[in-house]
Amino acid sequence: MIEEVYSKSFASDNHAGAHPAVIEAMSAANTGDAPAYGDDRWTGALDERMRAEFGENAATLVVLNGTGANMLSLSIMLGRRYEAIICPETAHIATHETGASERVLGVKLVTVPTPDGKLTPSDITARLGGRGNISEVQPRVVSISEVTELGTCYTPEEIAALAATAHDNGLLLHVDGARLANAAAFLGCSLRALTTDAGVDVLSFGGSKNGAALGEAVVVLRPDLVEAGPYLRRQTLQLASKMRFVSAQLSALLTDDLWRRNAEHANAMTRRLADGVAGLPGLDVTWAVESNAVFAALPAGAIPELQSRYLFHVWDASRGIVRWMTAFDTAPEDVDIFIADIRQSVKRHSG
Amino acid sequence: MIEEVYSKSFASDNHAGAHPAVIEAMSAANTGDAPAYGDDRWTGALDERMRAEFGENAATLVVLNGTGANMLSLSIMLGRRYEAIICPETAHIATHETGASERVLGVKLVTVPTPDGKLTPSDITARLGGRGNISEVQPRVVSISEVTELGTCYTPEEIAALAATAHDNGLLLHVDGARLANAAAFLGCSLRALTTDAGVDVLSFGGSKNGAALGEAVVVLRPDLVEAGPYLRRQTLQLASKMRFVSAQLSALLTDDLWRRNAEHANAMTRRLADGVAGLPGLDVTWAVESNAVFAALPAGAIPELQSRYLFHVWDASRGIVRWMTAFDTAPEDVDIFIADIRQSVKRHSG
Amino acid sequence: MIEEVYSKSFASDNHAGAHPAVIEAMSAANTGDAPAYGDDRWTGALDERMRAEFGENAATLVVLNGTGANMLSLSIMLGRRYEAIICPETAHIATHETGASERVLGVKLVTVPTPDGKLTPSDITARLGGRGNISEVQPRVVSISEVTELGTCYTPEEIAALAATAHDNGLLLHVDGARLANAAAFLGCSLRALTTDAGVDVLSFGGSKNGAALGEAVVVLRPDLVEAGPYLRRQTLQLASKMRFVSAQLSALLTDDLWRRNAEHANAMTRRLADGVAGLPGLDVTWAVESNAVFAALPAGAIPELQSRYLFHVWDASRGIVRWMTAFDTAPEDVDIFIADIRQSVKRHSG
Amino acid sequence: MIEEVYSKSFASDNHAGAHPAVIEAMSAANTGDAPAYGDDRWTGALDERMRAEFGENAATLVVLNGTGANMLSLSIMLGRRYEAIICPETAHIATHETGASERVLGVKLVTVPTPDGKLTPSDITARLGGRGNISEVQPRVVSISEVTELGTCYTPEEIAALAATAHDNGLLLHVDGARLANAAAFLGCSLRALTTDAGVDVLSFGGSKNGAALGEAVVVLRPDLVEAGPYLRRQTLQLASKMRFVSAQLSALLTDDLWRRNAEHANAMTRRLADGVAGLPGLDVTWAVESNAVFAALPAGAIPELQSRYLFHVWDASRGIVRWMTAFDTAPEDVDIFIADIRQSVKRHSG
Repeated sequence: MIEEVYSKSFASDNHAGAHPAVIEAMSAANTGDAPAYGDDRWTGALDERMRAEFGENAATLVVLNGTGANMLSLSIMLGRRYEAIICPETAHIATHETGASERVLGVKLVTVPTPDGKLTPSDITARLGGRGNISEVQPRVVSISEVTELGTCYTPEEIAALAATAHDNGLLLHVDGARLANAAAFLGCSLRALTTDAGVDVLSFGGSKNGAALGEAVVVLRPDLVEAGPYLRRQTLQLASKMRFVSAQLSALLTDDLWRRNAEHANAMTRRLADGVAGLPGLDVTWAVESNAVFAALPAGAIPELQSRYLFHVWDASRGIVRWMTAFDTAPEDVDIFIADIRQSVKRHSG
Repeated sequence: MIEEVYSKSFASDNHAGAHPAVIEAMSAANTGDAPAYGDDRWTGALDERMRAEFGENAATLVVLNGTGANMLSLSIMLGRRYEAIICPETAHIATHETGASERVLGVKLVTVPTPDGKLTPSDITARLGGRGNISEVQPRVVSISEVTELGTCYTPEEIAALAATAHDNGLLLHVDGARLANAAAFLGCSLRALTTDAGVDVLSFGGSKNGAALGEAVVVLRPDLVEAGPYLRRQTLQLASKMRFVSAQLSALLTDDLWRRNAEHANAMTRRLADGVAGLPGLDVTWAVESNAVFAALPAGAIPELQSRYLFHVWDASRGIVRWMTAFDTAPEDVDIFIADIRQSVKRHSG
Repeated sequence: MIEEVYSKSFASDNHAGAHPAVIEAMSAANTGDAPAYGDDRWTGALDERMRAEFGENAATLVVLNGTGANMLSLSIMLGRRYEAIICPETAHIATHETGASERVLGVKLVTVPTPDGKLTPSDITARLGGRGNISEVQPRVVSISEVTELGTCYTPEEIAALAATAHDNGLLLHVDGARLANAAAFLGCSLRALTTDAGVDVLSFGGSKNGAALGEAVVVLRPDLVEAGPYLRRQTLQLASKMRFVSAQLSALLTDDLWRRNAEHANAMTRRLADGVAGLPGLDVTWAVESNAVFAALPAGAIPELQSRYLFHVWDASRGIVRWMTAFDTAPEDVDIFIADIRQSVKRHSG
Repeated sequence: MIEEVYSKSFASDNHAGAHPAVIEAMSAANTGDAPAYGDDRWTGALDERMRAEFGENAATLVVLNGTGANMLSLSIMLGRRYEAIICPETAHIATHETGASERVLGVKLVTVPTPDGKLTPSDITARLGGRGNISEVQPRVVSISEVTELGTCYTPEEIAALAATAHDNGLLLHVDGARLANAAAFLGCSLRALTTDAGVDVLSFGGSKNGAALGEAVVVLRPDLVEAGPYLRRQTLQLASKMRFVSAQLSALLTDDLWRRNAEHANAMTRRLADGVAGLPGLDVTWAVESNAVFAALPAGAIPELQSRYLFHVWDASRGIVRWMTAFDTAPEDVDIFIADIRQSVKRHSG
């Protein structure tokens, strides 16, 4: 039990609980009968808030988890059964969804090695050589993550460049935005600047990593893709019958920019942690710290020692890289204690 | 908006809100960090409660909705890719899951016409004629619903007979128990009597129709099928990261037999409704009233008239059959007002 | 070994060998190097012959077997992943392709009971009640067989009526024409009259049951569906590398109307058989004899007795119905001997 | 039309026609009625010949093309729906089957970069790090090609080492043997030495690239995998109704070691070609020449010049690598003329 053994989890932002406003919103939505499957007023209100955030064309589909959001997004975008998806080798859809893309969508992922988890326009064009060759899959969708799985962020300009390259080549752009809020907070921009305004076609918008108890959304930004969504949501097992209890959570996060405050806090705690271990001999921060995750290479002995007291993941065992994450509710004091323990442990095991 | 236009919904037990104990349980689970994906103490506690309910071999997988519970259950049971599932023509998996069985599982459903939604042992054996014929799919699973989609119930003996026939023929038995609680309440038996003790192999256990906000469970009763479950849960998009918020809901329903009280109340309200319209000229109750749904054939004009004031579904437009459902929180007074309105409307339109 | 034990097979038209002209055509195509995958002159020549037969818009895809032809046809026609196919309960795609529709296409078949294997326009419209209901699959394709699996034929007018109903409702019409030649021969019309001119969108055109050794074709009659075909052919495992050896066979069947002569002969032999057993007490011909198959209900004892000397299938064991088929090379003398044996056997076992 | 424009194709061994003995065998199999779907004496005879070649446990499934052979092989080997296949990045199943693995099997390919198209035991063990992690696919099958797509060969010892590593880790080994004959010819060993004796579990055995008109085989070497084969063959669209016409071709290749003579000739022609261009300034042979393909990097200008007279594929446009192949019927004179043309063209365009 984490509560008893560990002081604090730095394993993932989904180890945190829910923001109190989220629980309150669910409780407030519990007012007797309401139509099921999204024909309720809480879902209606969420639709409006999402349009305010993502633009008038944004059609929102409330879903149940991040993998579901991605599979629904991609299934809305895919047409012919020989189409493929271009994505970074580190993409969540490629590495941590137990093959759902291949099994549920039946689609091949054309994966691209990247130094920092970020795709470039030339990564896309370099994968179009098999166009028109009937023996090869035909790319139709480009999928990127914002924040990436390595904690890095695309700027709005970088996303716009990817969208332009995609569209110029007849492709669509998907964003896995499980941590889109953290990117917007880091970049100091709106959610819309990273998506609608940059030319994104469909996105997965994360709730649970931002403070929801359970709930994500798919946002369809191209009107011609809207119609299929509700059918595909049911088919991909993402339709909640009492949807109000999910919609209310997401609305709570969108109220008074709670999403941004939550993300800013999580990012600040990671910044504090990264700063606290910066320059420590024997510890190398692996990728730029641009969200609520820091990846670091540690001396071999330090990892099990720290893991005996703190929950966190080893990202790459062969290179000794670990991932530390913070959440909307991480306390600065906990970060400081963690920093102190890291410093001691790394010192003990390096040289 | 239902709240303003309609007095009360009789459309579905998922139009109800959540039981207050369920919301409280979620709130109580919001105590800071906890491991994700089910390694938390609320899910551990649920596991124990479920074993108390379904027996020591019961392995519980918390999932997100009813279709997800069914798809995960079936995918745990299916092996070879030419296997098929025998189920009633009216099965939810066959009619109301937007083809998820075919798309997500890639499996053919061998559907059986039934008078009352209930499969019989001879329905099974009659579908085994193609065994060994390589041009035909090979049945591997029998799937029944308890309560059925027509509101009827199998007795424990009937389920045991189906399980015996299935097992004698090398098949497995699945129960879609979205309303298993209502069946146990109607039959006055334990959940275990209808499942484990009757020989069921895997079941979908409904939470949301019994008073949860969101959450169901798959219960695997055969030890050799347990290992695959967690992988398939992630792949079928049913894994909640902050699982404690779902587990806590289901535990609340299992505490002090809240599930049974909720189901008994819903059943009693349907019984009250059925009794209140019994014998009314022009109204025929279609199937035996054995749970929280009553189906009735009404005079054509009465349906739109009643639907202008009450939410409920037309089950079979060609035969004028409607479905009325009650829930854990349906008030007797609302039922009585509904009965009075039905009586007036039917009278006006019959004869 | 059939050659030694049995005098003659009446089991299926695919028990026959290949027409000599087919073998000769393969031999003649064996002239050294030729481009693979269909860029050869034999495939080019077939394309032209097929356009002559089916009209200028006919795009031909040579494929490898009947199930492959059906799966490719349907995959060309299907778009969104929640679409469904309406077909008769007896359709080959529903009964004898080991669930390929569900597994390879991931699609639900909405099956319709029919008295004679033939769908009617009202069968189609009656299956459209779930349109717009996101919990139900959405029909997109109607698939019929010409000749049907029960040996009956649609007239050109009947097919045109189905096509009109399909198109009026936004659906496409597929014809499984594994025995299209037999239908055209029976009806005394062109292949085109039954397909292009009747409004068919895509068809499977049978070669092997008409005298080919191996080979079928998919014919796409809607220009907007042509582009996807070659990719889907490879993906559905239907692309022959040395395609000339298949194309040459089909061209041989199309030369000097060999296909029609083969079909007419097979039909005539079945007619002879049906006439020879007509009126025999104890034997009931089950469906109208309109091609190269006759179905008959026999006294129980006669079936194993006849099967000890002749190869044929029991179609429906519970009703004692057998299927007898003839082929392009069935000899009248063999039919006459078979008739005599049937008459004796039926007499012995009836009454 | 290749016959008129080009002297000779060096594009692929499937540009060749069929060996005369193959056509004769088909013709000889055309002797009236025979049971369909493989219950004929030609298929029975092939079964025996295959057992003589691959051992008493070898169960042969005749199939229709190479992609079909691979998909059937893999579908026989795969069990749970979250399993994955480890294969080289250059594998045919990964690059040239239009995503059939993902679409038809629903499986993820875990692809491994290799210098020469050959997997090593440590490539396998390095991909097992996600074992037991429910978010990752679980490798179940290792698939290699013999000959590889780069024209290189595994020795029997190398295959045995891969099989041992696979089995030690609970995996199965598949060999895509579209050109297995060429490997056996190059290595001077039996087919069995490369498969059964090396511990291979299932293999695709190529016919068309060895001189058949159309036809391949899947050979199942593990008894516990045999039963599923026939069902899966029909479902994966690989069942020929008049199977004798395919079986007879494969039997012809197995008679008097015709397969070996065909492969030896093709290999010798490639050896002649490689020797003829060896040491030519400006031309670099890319990978070891161990079968009937030579890959070479050419000066940019030489490629289109040669392609204006000869059919061959550009393998890697960015690096100027072309692939030249020979077949069972390639004439030495044609090779010599080609060599002369290559030498001239390369000389003209290099420096």
